[in-house]
Amino acid sequence: MKGVALRPVLRDSSEPGLDAVAVEEPLEIRVDGEAIATTMRTPGADADLALGFLLAEGILRGAADVGTVTWCGRPGEEGYGNVIDVRSAAGIRLDPDRILDGARFQPIGSACGVCGRRSIDDLVARAGRVVAPTRVTTETVVGAVNAIRGRQPIFSATGGLHAALLVSSSGEVLASAEDVGRHNAVDKAIGALLRRGLVGASASPEAGPSVLAVSSRAGFEIVQKAAAAGVPVVASVSAPTSLAVDLAESTGIALCGFVRGGRCNVYANGWRLGLSAPSPQAG
Amino acid sequence: MKGVALRPVLRDSSEPGLDAVAVEEPLEIRVDGEAIATTMRTPGADADLALGFLLAEGILRGAADVGTVTWCGRPGEEGYGNVIDVRSAAGIRLDPDRILDGARFQPIGSACGVCGRRSIDDLVARAGRVVAPTRVTTETVVGAVNAIRGRQPIFSATGGLHAALLVSSSGEVLASAEDVGRHNAVDKAIGALLRRGLVGASASPEAGPSVLAVSSRAGFEIVQKAAAAGVPVVASVSAPTSLAVDLAESTGIALCGFVRGGRCNVYANGWRLGLSAPSPQAG
Repeated sequence: MKGVALRPVLRDSSEPGLDAVAVEEPLEIRVDGEAIATTMRTPGADADLALGFLLAEGILRGAADVGTVTWCGRPGEEGYGNVIDVRSAAGIRLDPDRILDGARFQPIGSACGVCGRRSIDDLVARAGRVVAPTRVTTETVVGAVNAIRGRQPIFSATGGLHAALLVSSSGEVLASAEDVGRHNAVDKAIGALLRRGLVGASASPEAGPSVLAVSSRAGFEIVQKAAAAGVPVVASVSAPTSLAVDLAESTGIALCGFVRGGRCNVYANGWRLGLSAPSPQAG
Repeated sequence: MKGVALRPVLRDSSEPGLDAVAVEEPLEIRVDGEAIATTMRTPGADADLALGFLLAEGILRGAADVGTVTWCGRPGEEGYGNVIDVRSAAGIRLDPDRILDGARFQPIGSACGVCGRRSIDDLVARAGRVVAPTRVTTETVVGAVNAIRGRQPIFSATGGLHAALLVSSSGEVLASAEDVGRHNAVDKAIGALLRRGLVGASASPEAGPSVLAVSSRAGFEIVQKAAAAGVPVVASVSAPTSLAVDLAESTGIALCGFVRGGRCNVYANGWRLGLSAPSPQAG
């Protein structure tokens, strides 16, 4: 199975054996030939990962911005498949310098003293608002999270992966992905729909995903990626963080945590689940 | 409790309430005034986080390289506490450009085609070997992982944090830390011991930590941080990745996974637990 490797293992006093472990390898993402990021990921759906990552970072706006996505090098060469190049569509110039505005281990601002708090406000302000008046039922949210386990073939083999699902308002699974990195899993699922024109600048909210369900905790970057892709509901099997709650509130995203055993805590924009009145600016 | 915030929550049809969530805020890390990284972290032990991060990235080698660690700005200003500056000791010049060689979302190499595989080898080669002939018992490893739960006050309140522990060969807990990011928790624990001179360039292996125990999966970066700090055993409650196994093997680190319910799978350098003969180059 792709994404799974065998490694020798010793279990206490028993004989040496082999164990299935999740594959982790670096992927270098390039834009028009320029290397802009390297992430540790589980190989597979790498084009989706690159596209979802670039959407979240604000470097591309939708499928129309993308010309080709190609591997660097030649098949059979060592390392072929670990460097991917996203090229601009004709008439478009993707600007990788915009990644310098991103939150991922990059300097943010430099004014001493006020930087910290301003950074939080900046991070929140930079994410787009999800303006579509989409509402979903609690059953759809619970069903989306429950559907994760059935779509984790590598996790089932290794116990070592995170998963992300994108689900329509009627509960249909539109995309799913697994990765050693929880952010990568989200990028892959979003990138798969970007490629199909279901998320991004020219996508119709009606046809696109309503719920992003994740097997991991819901941190700031998960909500940020949902906002960049226009997904109105984020549902996590585990806990949210304070900044994830704050970002969800300000971007119009309903944030559901601890979705397990029929339980569903809603930390922001509960009106999307019919649990509260819409906020004044909501559709 | 520091690291915990209250946010409104709706639970299905019941009345609105408040829930404790783990705090997540950006920390900007500077070296001699130059911003080099921003990470989302749970506030607390930020000096340790900065020191552990800089050790793992190869920017500093030990406590003797560090002059002062100070907050930027003035107490009471908004955002005070989210920008930290590590200053070089007299006669030392910490070189933040070395971070460009790191694996964290930075370009690695640029030769098309051969880059991917070379990157993996580079990543493995860049990590130092742990040469100390330290051996531990399986009981110490299991005990270290079991000790995690007793040292997770924020997790107990929020369900949202990872933890890392550093334990001596006799089983004494030398340092523990919690954070929304599993890599941050490791940096904080290692940084705490660096500050006490127990890890880093001039530390004695006998007095230092023998086991790094983590509440999360064991990925490449966890093993990389252990190697940089000279910790000979990594133990995880969950699964390892393929690259973590490969890096542990090549750096002389014993990698234990799925340490739970008395079970302990050893994926590399089992001789440190008395489960195999030492490899030829081992002490």
